[in-house]
Formats: sequence, structure tokens, C-alpha cells
Amino acid sequence: MPDIIGIIHRKRDGHELSGAEIDWVIEAFTHGVVDDAQMSALAMAIWFRGMSRAEIARWTTAMTDSGRRLDFTGLGLRTVDKHSTGGVGDKITLPLAPLVAACGAAVPQLSGRGLGHTGGTLDKLESIPGWRADLTTTEMAEILTDPDVGAVVCAAGADLAPADRKLYALRDVTGTVESIPLIASSIMSKKIAEGAGALVLDVKVGTGAFMTELGEARELARIMVELGTDADLPTTALITRMDTPLGRTAGNALEVREAVEVLAGGGPADVVELTLALAREMLAAAGIDDVDPAERLRDGSAMDRWRSMIAAQGGDPDAVLPVASHTETVCADADGVLAELDALAVGKAAWRLGAGREHQGQVVQPGAGVELHAVVGDTVRQGQPVATLHTDTPGRFHAAAAALRGGIRIADTAPAPRPLIVERITP
Amino acid sequence: MPDIIGIIHRKRDGHELSGAEIDWVIEAFTHGVVDDAQMSALAMAIWFRGMSRAEIARWTTAMTDSGRRLDFTGLGLRTVDKHSTGGVGDKITLPLAPLVAACGAAVPQLSGRGLGHTGGTLDKLESIPGWRADLTTTEMAEILTDPDVGAVVCAAGADLAPADRKLYALRDVTGTVESIPLIASSIMSKKIAEGAGALVLDVKVGTGAFMTELGEARELARIMVELGTDADLPTTALITRMDTPLGRTAGNALEVREAVEVLAGGGPADVVELTLALAREMLAAAGIDDVDPAERLRDGSAMDRWRSMIAAQGGDPDAVLPVASHTETVCADADGVLAELDALAVGKAAWRLGAGREHQGQVVQPGAGVELHAVVGDTVRQGQPVATLHTDTPGRFHAAAAALRGGIRIADTAPAPRPLIVERITP
Repeated sequence: MPDIIGIIHRKRDGHELSGAEIDWVIEAFTHGVVDDAQMSALAMAIWFRGMSRAEIARWTTAMTDSGRRLDFTGLGLRTVDKHSTGGVGDKITLPLAPLVAACGAAVPQLSGRGLGHTGGTLDKLESIPGWRADLTTTEMAEILTDPDVGAVVCAAGADLAPADRKLYALRDVTGTVESIPLIASSIMSKKIAEGAGALVLDVKVGTGAFMTELGEARELARIMVELGTDADLPTTALITRMDTPLGRTAGNALEVREAVEVLAGGGPADVVELTLALAREMLAAAGIDDVDPAERLRDGSAMDRWRSMIAAQGGDPDAVLPVASHTETVCADADGVLAELDALAVGKAAWRLGAGREHQGQVVQPGAGVELHAVVGDTVRQGQPVATLHTDTPGRFHAAAAALRGGIRIADTAPAPRPLIVERITP
Repeated sequence: MPDIIGIIHRKRDGHELSGAEIDWVIEAFTHGVVDDAQMSALAMAIWFRGMSRAEIARWTTAMTDSGRRLDFTGLGLRTVDKHSTGGVGDKITLPLAPLVAACGAAVPQLSGRGLGHTGGTLDKLESIPGWRADLTTTEMAEILTDPDVGAVVCAAGADLAPADRKLYALRDVTGTVESIPLIASSIMSKKIAEGAGALVLDVKVGTGAFMTELGEARELARIMVELGTDADLPTTALITRMDTPLGRTAGNALEVREAVEVLAGGGPADVVELTLALAREMLAAAGIDDVDPAERLRDGSAMDRWRSMIAAQGGDPDAVLPVASHTETVCADADGVLAELDALAVGKAAWRLGAGREHQGQVVQPGAGVELHAVVGDTVRQGQPVATLHTDTPGRFHAAAAALRGGIRIADTAPAPRPLIVERITP
């Protein structure tokens, strides 16, 4: 039997772990033979030493194999999934899943709840009265095969990559989250276990993302595309900017409202642009090249899918969304052009207002968040509202406003526009 | 309140921790606010990044202050302690403590049990029938002030540097032992809390020691001497070789027997040499310069002190020491000169025979160990016994003999002799 101290020493001292060592560590950690303190020391050693391509691939497979794999191949559908590495105001899944379903591909997406300054897709959808995230695999299959729906966004079961679930919770409290090999294997072990036919990744780069440097984002994207390809999950990635929030809202119900605007044919240009770009990637991955997703937004069929998708999971698409009990505006302190509206600052403000959680299991406020009245490049006047803060706990306004103000810069001239979609990574 | 994830990140990313952060971490870890997994991640980050002199000093003080400090200043004695970083066959404390007491300085030594291939002083003394390691502070003071004794070697109470106790147990199972700042602060936090008037360190270097390189040993010694000096504990260090065992025995009762030989005026030359050198250091530190310890070995007064020291802790100095039920010899496989008799190999053999423990709390065999019939430089003939293995569990002979054989090298010529005492480190 391999011994954990020897394995920690080998990684710490810069050696490559063998496949057998990795299989044993993941299995032993899942079953408590390797304890949290030992795994956390190993994770920190990996933070410093990294992992070779072979190590990352084996680590990922071992985590996937720690639980069951879903399999939708028997349904006769072209299935495709999308995963975002997380950003502020990133509500793209909400319009994207029904839009892709409207174009003919089935979307089985297992998603998560938010932690820290980036919101979780399930938290957003749970602001819709009645909507529930927990489905059985049978329910998922029924919704996917329903010709009026074809898209499902739900919570991953505890038996899906349990090693990753346990390791992620540990990394979160031990300062070992920011490791490219560990991030890549965490995401891909779950996505491989989910059993979709293809995968499109939205790898964020910028101040509001895990990866603030393009080089890191590119490395993460390349590793994940390779891991997917090696596991027979055709994978491509778009690297997209996350220096400023996507759209004009950050917060659960606020973002649902904006997603519905996009499905109605309106909405902020950046949200529409990214939704369409990812839809095209997903359709290409599913082998569908004769449908224009922009047309499906215009003709209302994506909105129809949204309504039936929400209803299929118990939600009322016509229900009034929760609204926070208190609001406060943050105003421009000078005349000029909004040169910077930092994603991290907006994310932290929304989080402090109650839209996100500090630790796992916390309840979030559905109505809380930040609504932006101006975005980067807009001309503003002193005293004009730049944002409205929403919360049920007005004691949080002060800290949230301070966080937001730290991310606002007003200048004389507009910054050079930066493309939202930076790069496309393929195998 | 500082937050632990932020502190882990700062150390991980190469920043210096503030005094307030270190105080908080040690206090929070001692009381379970910072959990084992978080401390283990921080310890691994320290392994990689090291600590500045200021950080080590603060870390040490915080660990000392996590419990109570003993204080013998009211006894009107000149007290001095010795600490060895651990080696194979290192029974020096046994003759040294009574010898120094016989020369007029009181020796209050809190010692530990062994883990891994180096034995613990308490394990050795516990092979003497009736001897007990657990004393109250009052009992310690009585023994120290008894004009016929003046030396006590006992277990540290749970309230002495509890932060170090908890951290050491954690490092032991998380692959984070081998860090010079953590080793130095662990040793010195306890030694400062023990309240002796001065301290002499025996820092081992070589294959059987923590530090295999002289540069590392020198760094460790310098840091510890500085930590002692800064904490008003006058400290000096000898750096001594640990490439081959000290003396001719490794194992609990076997080593007691050899210590008694030294006290009787005989014993192996290296054990006598190091005992006298450390005694002279300790006497100088205690301000005693008119007594020759060699004379106290010759005249039997050190032996008298040994007998009363053992009796004062319930032991019978005339009792027959435990003997293992099985022995087996390991013979030379060629004619020549014993060019190498590796300390680590002998230590591992003794450990496998039952003299040491694999994990904390295990019971050790008092009679188990390795008895050497030849040492480095001796001429041997093929088939001549080089060592006798002792154990109560003969199933262990095979693995122990294999470990030992891997450390024996017979050559045509003797190696150049290396001095046992390499260097003296003073403030």
C-alpha cells in the first residue's frame, strides 16, 4: 500500500506522482483513510509544484471514477453542455440553455451554488418561485426528451465525483483554490461524469475572474480542452473578458430579470453577444450547423423553451420575482466618462448585500444585488446614479457602497474598447 | 480578527507574516479555531517559503506562551539543560545529566519519546524497572534541590507549549517535519518554557540525523542559538557527526547498559568524548569552571548521582535490565575494513526490531535493538559477526537484517577518520 507521507514528500520535493499513487490518494481521501490535514498539505504542495499533464489526467479520471457517471447516450439526443469558470453578472446559462434547446440540441447541465463574489446559477434560478434544483436522473431524462423543453439545469447529486466535492470544500478553507491543475481537474472530473456528448467552456479572464492573466486563462483552457478530449468528451473553449460585470445586474432575481430580457429579444449587448457566441459553439459541437440562434431569440422560440424549462422544474415563469426591501443609489462623484467599473468590486458589493454566501450552506437573499445604470464607456455627470444597491439588510449598504466605489473610476476620456471574446481554444 | 485563509495566502505567496498574525494563528490553532487542515496547509507553505528571523522568533514565543513556563530561579541553583536534535544510539543524556549534577550544576531536563528511527530518552530510561517519567513540578524541584541528586529527566506536561505539541503531531502525519524554521521553533519553544538557566544544543548532522548537510545543521544551530539568546536563555550549540551510531548499541535497555559502562569509567570512546564535551559546555554555561568532569567519571561520583537519580524516580539501579527473547547475528560478507556502518540503516533496523514506534502511543520493546561488534575502521573477516539483533518478535529479523546490511560497506582500506565534534556555535 502506498503511504501518504511518502506521497506528500515526493510531490513536495518535486517528483512526479505515479498513476497508482494518484488512484490510491483519491480513493483513500474519499473514504477518509487519508485525512483532511494530509490532503490539504498535498494540495498546498501541488499549488507550489504543479502537476504534469499525465498527473492531471490521472487525477481527473480518479475523481470522475470516485462516483457514478451519468449516461444520456440511450436517449437518442445530441447533448451538449457549457461550463463557465465564473464571473460577476454571469447569467449566460439562463438564456443559453433554452436557446440551444430551441435550436435542436439537448442541454443537460449540472450546476452549482455560489461561494464568494461570483454567484451560482442555481442560486439565480432558485429566486424563481417554485423552481427546484434537485432532480432525479429519471426526471432529467424526461425533461431532456420532452420536445417542448430539451434543457435542464439542476444540482449535481452527491454521488457525482464525490472526491471532487470533498476536495473542493477542503481547498476552499485551506487557501489552495488557486491552482490551475486542481481547478482544471475539479471542473473536468464533474463535467466528464455528467455524461453530455460535448462540452463548451467559457474561461473567464480579468479582475473578476479566478484567472487575472491571459496566460493563466489560456493554460487552464488548454488543459481542460485536452482533459475533455482525452476522456472522449469533445471540448472547446472561449476565453472571455471579466474585467467588468456581464450586463447590468449582479444578484439572483436581478439577473433572472435580465436573462428574460435577452430571451425577449432585448437585453444588454454584451450578454446577447456572449450568449450567441456560446450557442454557436455548442451547436457546432452537437453537429448542428443549419440553425441561426439569433433567429431563435427573435422568433420567440427560445423564450418558449425558457418558460417550459422553468415550469418543468416546478417554477412559475409568470411569477413576480422577489424584490429586496431596501435600495440605495451610488452616484458619480465627478463629470466624465466611466473608465472603469471593476468586476471584483461589483461582485463583492453584491455579495455583501446578501446575494452571495460567505460559507457553504448559507441562505442567500434572492432580491439582493447591484443594478448598474452606467457601464464602462458611458458619459456620467456628478451626482448621477451609477448603480442601485438592493438588499433586505440595510445595515450592509455602507460596506457594499464602499466596495463598489473602490471599483469606479471616472476619467476624461473613454478607454479603448476591449473585445469580450478574446480567444477560441480547440483540441 | 485576522482570517486564516488570508494568512495562508500571504505565506503561500511569499509575504512575511506580521507578529499579530502569528500570535493569532498559534492561539487559534491551539484552541481549534484554526483547524488541522488549515494549519497543515500553512505548515506546507512555510516548508516552501521559510520564515524570516522575526517570524521564527515570534512563532517560537507564541508557542512558548501557549502554555505555562516552569521557573526554577527560586531554588537557588545553577540550572542548565541539554537538547539533542536526535540521532541513532544517542544515549548521551543518560551519563551526562548525573555527571553535570556531580560537577555542581542542576539539570532539569524534560524529554520525549521516540518516533521513527531515532530513540527517545524516556523510552530508554523506562526500560529500567520501576522508573517513571511523569513527575509533578514539585517532585522535579525536590529532586533538583536534593544534594545527592540534582538531575531529573522526565516527561513534559501537557501544559508545556501545547501549541507545539499539537503542531508537531500534525506535522508528523502531513509531511511537514523537515522545515528548519519549524524544527527550530518547536525545539526552542519547549526549551524556553522549561525554565532552565542555560541551554546547550547538540545539533546532529549526517545520514542518521534530520540534517544531512552541514550547511543546514549550521543554519538550524544558529537560529536556535539566536532564539535562546533573544529569550534570555543563554544558548550554545555543538554540531556533531551522526553518520554512524554513537557507541555500540541502539535500543532502549541496550543503551542504558552502555551508559552505565560510561559512568563506570569505561564505555565506547565516542560516547565518552561527546559526554565530556557537552558536560564542559554545560558547566561553562552554568558558570562553573573549576571542576573537571573527566575526574567525576573516574572517581565514581557521577555513577553515584546516576543511582540516586534513577532511584528518585522510582527506578531500581540494581535491577536486571530487560533482555530480548531472541537474537540473531549479522556477519561480514568479506574480509576487509568496515568502511561504512550507516546510522540510518542501524536506526531503521533497531526500529524494525521493536525498539522504536511507527506511530505515537505505540509500546516499544525494552530489550530490542542492535548491538554492534565492530565499528567504522575496524578490520573484519568474512563470517565474523558485525552485529547482534535483539527482539521479542523474531518475525522481524528478516526486515531488520536487510535494513542493516544495506548500511554496511567493507573495503580494502580504512576511511579517513572524521572528527565527532564539527563546530561550536555561540551567540
